[in-house]
Amino acid sequence: MNRVIYKKFLRACGALSLCLSGGALFWPSAVRAQLITFSKQDLTDYTAKEPFERFPDGRPKVPDALLERARDLNSEEIWATLQEKGYNNQFADGFQVLHPGKPLVGRAFTVQFMPLRQDVDQIAQQKAKERGLPRLMNQTAIDMLQPGDVLVVDIMGKKVDGTIVGDNLFYYVMKATHGGGLVVDGSIRDLNGISEIDMPAYFKFSDPTPIGNVMLTGINIPIRIGNATVMPGDLVVGDREGVYFIPPQFVKETLDRADEIRIHDEWTKKKFDEGKYKSSEVYSTPKDPKLREEYQEYLKKRLAELKKQRGEN
Amino acid sequence: MNRVIYKKFLRACGALSLCLSGGALFWPSAVRAQLITFSKQDLTDYTAKEPFERFPDGRPKVPDALLERARDLNSEEIWATLQEKGYNNQFADGFQVLHPGKPLVGRAFTVQFMPLRQDVDQIAQQKAKERGLPRLMNQTAIDMLQPGDVLVVDIMGKKVDGTIVGDNLFYYVMKATHGGGLVVDGSIRDLNGISEIDMPAYFKFSDPTPIGNVMLTGINIPIRIGNATVMPGDLVVGDREGVYFIPPQFVKETLDRADEIRIHDEWTKKKFDEGKYKSSEVYSTPKDPKLREEYQEYLKKRLAELKKQRGEN
Amino acid sequence: MNRVIYKKFLRACGALSLCLSGGALFWPSAVRAQLITFSKQDLTDYTAKEPFERFPDGRPKVPDALLERARDLNSEEIWATLQEKGYNNQFADGFQVLHPGKPLVGRAFTVQFMPLRQDVDQIAQQKAKERGLPRLMNQTAIDMLQPGDVLVVDIMGKKVDGTIVGDNLFYYVMKATHGGGLVVDGSIRDLNGISEIDMPAYFKFSDPTPIGNVMLTGINIPIRIGNATVMPGDLVVGDREGVYFIPPQFVKETLDRADEIRIHDEWTKKKFDEGKYKSSEVYSTPKDPKLREEYQEYLKKRLAELKKQRGEN
Amino acid sequence: MNRVIYKKFLRACGALSLCLSGGALFWPSAVRAQLITFSKQDLTDYTAKEPFERFPDGRPKVPDALLERARDLNSEEIWATLQEKGYNNQFADGFQVLHPGKPLVGRAFTVQFMPLRQDVDQIAQQKAKERGLPRLMNQTAIDMLQPGDVLVVDIMGKKVDGTIVGDNLFYYVMKATHGGGLVVDGSIRDLNGISEIDMPAYFKFSDPTPIGNVMLTGINIPIRIGNATVMPGDLVVGDREGVYFIPPQFVKETLDRADEIRIHDEWTKKKFDEGKYKSSEVYSTPKDPKLREEYQEYLKKRLAELKKQRGEN
Amino acid sequence: MNRVIYKKFLRACGALSLCLSGGALFWPSAVRAQLITFSKQDLTDYTAKEPFERFPDGRPKVPDALLERARDLNSEEIWATLQEKGYNNQFADGFQVLHPGKPLVGRAFTVQFMPLRQDVDQIAQQKAKERGLPRLMNQTAIDMLQPGDVLVVDIMGKKVDGTIVGDNLFYYVMKATHGGGLVVDGSIRDLNGISEIDMPAYFKFSDPTPIGNVMLTGINIPIRIGNATVMPGDLVVGDREGVYFIPPQFVKETLDRADEIRIHDEWTKKKFDEGKYKSSEVYSTPKDPKLREEYQEYLKKRLAELKKQRGEN
Amino acid sequence: MNRVIYKKFLRACGALSLCLSGGALFWPSAVRAQLITFSKQDLTDYTAKEPFERFPDGRPKVPDALLERARDLNSEEIWATLQEKGYNNQFADGFQVLHPGKPLVGRAFTVQFMPLRQDVDQIAQQKAKERGLPRLMNQTAIDMLQPGDVLVVDIMGKKVDGTIVGDNLFYYVMKATHGGGLVVDGSIRDLNGISEIDMPAYFKFSDPTPIGNVMLTGINIPIRIGNATVMPGDLVVGDREGVYFIPPQFVKETLDRADEIRIHDEWTKKKFDEGKYKSSEVYSTPKDPKLREEYQEYLKKRLAELKKQRGEN
Repeated sequence: MNRVIYKKFLRACGALSLCLSGGALFWPSAVRAQLITFSKQDLTDYTAKEPFERFPDGRPKVPDALLERARDLNSEEIWATLQEKGYNNQFADGFQVLHPGKPLVGRAFTVQFMPLRQDVDQIAQQKAKERGLPRLMNQTAIDMLQPGDVLVVDIMGKKVDGTIVGDNLFYYVMKATHGGGLVVDGSIRDLNGISEIDMPAYFKFSDPTPIGNVMLTGINIPIRIGNATVMPGDLVVGDREGVYFIPPQFVKETLDRADEIRIHDEWTKKKFDEGKYKSSEVYSTPKDPKLREEYQEYLKKRLAELKKQRGEN
Repeated sequence: MNRVIYKKFLRACGALSLCLSGGALFWPSAVRAQLITFSKQDLTDYTAKEPFERFPDGRPKVPDALLERARDLNSEEIWATLQEKGYNNQFADGFQVLHPGKPLVGRAFTVQFMPLRQDVDQIAQQKAKERGLPRLMNQTAIDMLQPGDVLVVDIMGKKVDGTIVGDNLFYYVMKATHGGGLVVDGSIRDLNGISEIDMPAYFKFSDPTPIGNVMLTGINIPIRIGNATVMPGDLVVGDREGVYFIPPQFVKETLDRADEIRIHDEWTKKKFDEGKYKSSEVYSTPKDPKLREEYQEYLKKRLAELKKQRGEN
Repeated sequence: MNRVIYKKFLRACGALSLCLSGGALFWPSAVRAQLITFSKQDLTDYTAKEPFERFPDGRPKVPDALLERARDLNSEEIWATLQEKGYNNQFADGFQVLHPGKPLVGRAFTVQFMPLRQDVDQIAQQKAKERGLPRLMNQTAIDMLQPGDVLVVDIMGKKVDGTIVGDNLFYYVMKATHGGGLVVDGSIRDLNGISEIDMPAYFKFSDPTPIGNVMLTGINIPIRIGNATVMPGDLVVGDREGVYFIPPQFVKETLDRADEIRIHDEWTKKKFDEGKYKSSEVYSTPKDPKLREEYQEYLKKRLAELKKQRGEN
Repeated sequence: MNRVIYKKFLRACGALSLCLSGGALFWPSAVRAQLITFSKQDLTDYTAKEPFERFPDGRPKVPDALLERARDLNSEEIWATLQEKGYNNQFADGFQVLHPGKPLVGRAFTVQFMPLRQDVDQIAQQKAKERGLPRLMNQTAIDMLQPGDVLVVDIMGKKVDGTIVGDNLFYYVMKATHGGGLVVDGSIRDLNGISEIDMPAYFKFSDPTPIGNVMLTGINIPIRIGNATVMPGDLVVGDREGVYFIPPQFVKETLDRADEIRIHDEWTKKKFDEGKYKSSEVYSTPKDPKLREEYQEYLKKRLAELKKQRGEN
Repeated sequence: MNRVIYKKFLRACGALSLCLSGGALFWPSAVRAQLITFSKQDLTDYTAKEPFERFPDGRPKVPDALLERARDLNSEEIWATLQEKGYNNQFADGFQVLHPGKPLVGRAFTVQFMPLRQDVDQIAQQKAKERGLPRLMNQTAIDMLQPGDVLVVDIMGKKVDGTIVGDNLFYYVMKATHGGGLVVDGSIRDLNGISEIDMPAYFKFSDPTPIGNVMLTGINIPIRIGNATVMPGDLVVGDREGVYFIPPQFVKETLDRADEIRIHDEWTKKKFDEGKYKSSEVYSTPKDPKLREEYQEYLKKRLAELKKQRGEN
Repeated sequence: MNRVIYKKFLRACGALSLCLSGGALFWPSAVRAQLITFSKQDLTDYTAKEPFERFPDGRPKVPDALLERARDLNSEEIWATLQEKGYNNQFADGFQVLHPGKPLVGRAFTVQFMPLRQDVDQIAQQKAKERGLPRLMNQTAIDMLQPGDVLVVDIMGKKVDGTIVGDNLFYYVMKATHGGGLVVDGSIRDLNGISEIDMPAYFKFSDPTPIGNVMLTGINIPIRIGNATVMPGDLVVGDREGVYFIPPQFVKETLDRADEIRIHDEWTKKKFDEGKYKSSEVYSTPKDPKLREEYQEYLKKRLAELKKQRGEN
């Protein structure tokens, strides 16, 4: 092996104290060597209301068709449903957005890091070794990603040494998730290279250092991103403003409601454009009963069109 | 009315405690129900030096032709005139700029909010009711906008609940002002939707929440934006750096001086390009009397051309 | 006059463009020359619910006896009443507290400044002159203070040039208000000298510069301090955490409730000290009905004692 | 029950969605209803190197005699040992220190909160109910405290609604821990009342609101405080600079080394005071071999005295 | 001379207290009038390891061919070499990047400013005058720039009055350096105009004020930019993340290593794309010895191609 | 030597790459090995206006008697003189003040650090070695301190690794300067120990780490502290607000003027206390000519008393 690259490899390992040994990977048990665990039973119990199927490890699996529809969602439409349900802690912002025009949509795959503490880390490594498992590191998580996933990482808002991926691993995340995306409360490196890769990403900083002085403490456990509690399998939706983590049981209702909101805005704009009304006469609710009736007709017609268009009949 | 939208409507009202009742709108008296008032007499007195005509409510009306010329202004050119006059508090920055390449130009239409306080707000509502007026809310102000206006809003730098408009009302502002623009010391929502609308906007944050927990306390009163005191009718000019609020009595001089500055820069650049001079030999003032003379000739010629071009003869 | 001091005098004037001319002072009309006005009628209308008497200018006057009782209040006790009423915007913090152990209690006397703008300021001066009034400056407000007042100043959080008082004027405020106090969203100067004066003060910064580059735009008008709307005559109460502005109509209820909260805490602490209970068994509400009864007895007895002590019959 | 207090009780419950039901408390199983669990086995495994006895729940128990000696420790002495071991992430600062002169020493009792999310919280409550356990809330943790504990709370640096205790619960923590102490990456309320209680406390903010909009997700699990990973049972030591979390296996060595550092400083200061040496001649290591020898004698003598003084034979 | 422009000229001078007198310019001695000097001998001594030729004033001159190759460098590639050498303080970030896609590459030409202090400044002016030299100001430095230079300015992170150039001088820097670039720990003005000029620039702020209240204290002396010590002649490389200052002795090795890193990434990506490997199987070092061998072949081949392409063979 | 302490010693050295070798110390030439030099000639030239004697190395020496008088100065009094002279950049604040009630007064002894850069640092060490000098480190400067000095350190506002002294070296600074004081734009360590030492100190942070990753680049050269340019020998005066650096040529005038200001305040306060005047009638200048006369008498009398008291006759 080339000396230069080998050194790079050694260094990255040293930084994490978390390097690879060989051997077959059996993920479901592999993750039992992490500090904080959240069993399949826990995951199922705590997401009991999700109405869809699940991954083998218990993670909710919002169907692909709904992911597709979610590409049109924006923050306000999601807010409308979630705040009504009393879910006010599902939004995080303050990120740099890699490709502002490109929607982020996918299933949350969560990862948690904590500051490196050697006594704890050594036990975790030893536990892994006893079970014939590789050491825990950022790639451990990345290699578990599925198409449609969004990698959601709590690395404590770190800048220096808090870079979850560079352009190589970012490329791999893109391949593995089929362009799903990345949300990191921390940083990335190789911003120049990453800018050329066509996958949505939300990050706090970029920095030339590799990840280090941290330990991976949980995969697909509940995590905090800003003021949001994120559960594995949440529907992740990001736009120019920030990122929403939608509990699976609200996905369908959010999407249906968003249809109505978009039709409402469409109709309102049309009315504005006629030039006969002040904003307060048609928005948010028309004062004139006739207008309200007209709107109801319009809504019904457009919803039917949408259904047909989606082949839902 | 559709249940979903109706709820949205109710919520927005609740948030502001400020909802619409029907009835014809007579704005000049309507605004008398706001907490802080600034009468037509006050407005005329405190902007006594403005040399142009006025709106019926007393607000100065910088002529359309000057607005047109102001589209070429930038912050430095305005600074040159205003600091000479001793007006150092007319600039505000630290905004996100929606369309960085697109100049913001228009007449200031000012709005002020304060934190909601129910005893005060209830009196304001009652006063409005007694006079057969609608309640005060953000749409109250928006429906009063005129072509060429820029909506300038002091909402205390709020992020959450400080969103003066979403894409619907932003669209209406665009229509009503003929693309005038928005400056808000606070936030907007629906950034995705707003990004597609072709009107300049300067805002501190974007957030998914609607406006709330505030009360509209003044329309077309003197307000503060950052370190600037803004009077209704000021000429608002924004570029990549920030926003200037130019008192009407200085508009003409600012524009004329900007012409000279631009000609000066044009000539200096030409001289640089000849490759014969160091920067300090031609800029900011040529040391060689011959060059100074040459510049004077150039200035005279170009000013004449500009005048002709504008048909000012 | 001494040259050195005279220069100091001139400079302070220049800074504010606001200097004294002689003449008798008739404040009620004097304040009509300020930019933002809030008439006696306005003040009475917008504080219509206050149950006490008023100052001649219409400002609510919470009685001295209640001010006295309010010296024992702290932020949490006030929060308990105001949040129940839905008044969540009456608290401001982030101040430096001059004498942390000394309670701040008094009636709000409000003052507002805006960034200096000469055209506006000149009109204000001219209006004042026409009515034989002195120019507006910080001393204009200070000379209007009454015993029991707290001077509450919105000077835009300025540090440099935002110093409402130095030790001389602070001393005068102390004398005029009988030790009432100062709250300034801005700065003070002469911190060394001020530290030796026994009056509560809440300020954001200290700075060696005198006040400047601002204009006094309102006296006893509604102002904003942080996230609070302050009305003239509000009961101002400050402790180590921050400052509450209590609408007069809630003063009595706040004080009575605080009595109960203090008795409740007194009793709970006694119970803890018996060593027989876990915190959750006695706090915040005892689970055992017998204990609840015991508490009720205690509360009744102590309230009666308090009343007697205060000579309230 | 008194209406006022009852409402307070209800509100506090509502805020947390976490209220008490009656029934006997069996804590070891009670904590199994929390979202993130860390079993006795986990705790023992991950703190395998601790050389002392343990609490029944597996938490390391640094002996009382060492706690006593630790009262003289300061941050620099701890840094000297831990950095040599490669433990650079055990320190947190940026706190307000309640009683700057009073040392904080005790065993870490850790608590973690996350933003409230109702679907998850409801499951946790239901699980608790099924096992006949009280709901999880801040008092759940407080009622489990032991003498010598320091309550270490990760509540996400929240200010508003992030107040782990007011003066009532702070008093109870003081009683339960025998004055152990509190470290909270978040806020407290009732700062006035708390200031009068003689227990060390480190907090980010004070605020009048009670705790709310959060859920207790873990008790005695690994948590993050600033850049430190804290394990249950760590020795917590705080001084004017900040707080150290010392892994139990390093406690003895840290204390012994601190003895030597203090003797070294004592001797150096004595030498300075003789007035014969420049700082670089005696500090940090004397250049003159004779002085080095003199120091060695002094060290030996003083260590012997210390041992005798402590009755260590 | 035109009155308006002349005033502008005077003002700029007054601001700096540093204006031009006529006379021939002999820079090598001219710079002896600056407050902080760093002689040609000093410069040579302190950059003794640089392996290339030098400018007449002793400044290292990284060859043009290496500048050319450096256009492909990014921050991570530079980090890889410099951290291995133990140079961890050569990176600065937190800048606004004028043209994010355009690489910044050139030789550091350093300039330092300090807060204006008249007694010191007057001596410097007098010294300059005695030697028949022009006064020191920002143009003094700009007129000394060479093709391939990057102007690196420490103006103390100032925003207001900290604008090293407007669009005129920026244009001249571009001409003089042949598009080299600008790095300023401070601000620029005329952002609108500067945006249209095709030269890389890194700045903290933009502001409408001209430079003022500072004095130029050093040209081509060691300076600090963020956490980096910059020596005159360092290779400056900037990308989307920030700016590296590479000591000349490491330029060749950095470039060679970057070649290998890029080939490594190229090969890894190819392997990913085959779809047969997990990220941890090929990155950062392949586990399979066969793959490692394959990579070594690839590396050798590609390095040879690169050399040939560059005509180095 | 004791192993533990020896390691501590080694580490501190390693951190700075700057350790002691033996040998006699001849400071005047020793300092020639620092990166940035400012010769005796430079120092004399650039402080040519100072009216007092000098130290052997050229540093201005404000007389002890004036230092003594300066103990009564506060920031506002200094501001009054310096702003009139046009010196607005001589003040720095934002410090933590160790003993708020204790005045800081002394002569500036300046020290500058830059981020460690090994190529540069190695040259500096080699130069020192060639001249038989010790390496440069913080103790190098400390051992040069004189009675009446204040150590003023620019260490770039660093917190971690930016600790100029711990309690040992702080003690030595106190001894060497006879309690002069410390101003550091950076941090200190051992805050607990330092708190017990009776010398004024102004610092940005405290941190448990020792100084490291920096190199000492200048002793008694011009430095920047916040927005101030500090020259060696400036009179340093600190109070609760911050620190002033007074050029020696203004010391006498500042002190005399402060006398007048204090007498003015004394008289004004007396007048207030008579209860006959509004603040604006006596402050800052009495309107009534009789009062002005009365003040002049008072001033003359008190100045005479002061002179007598000081034995100035």
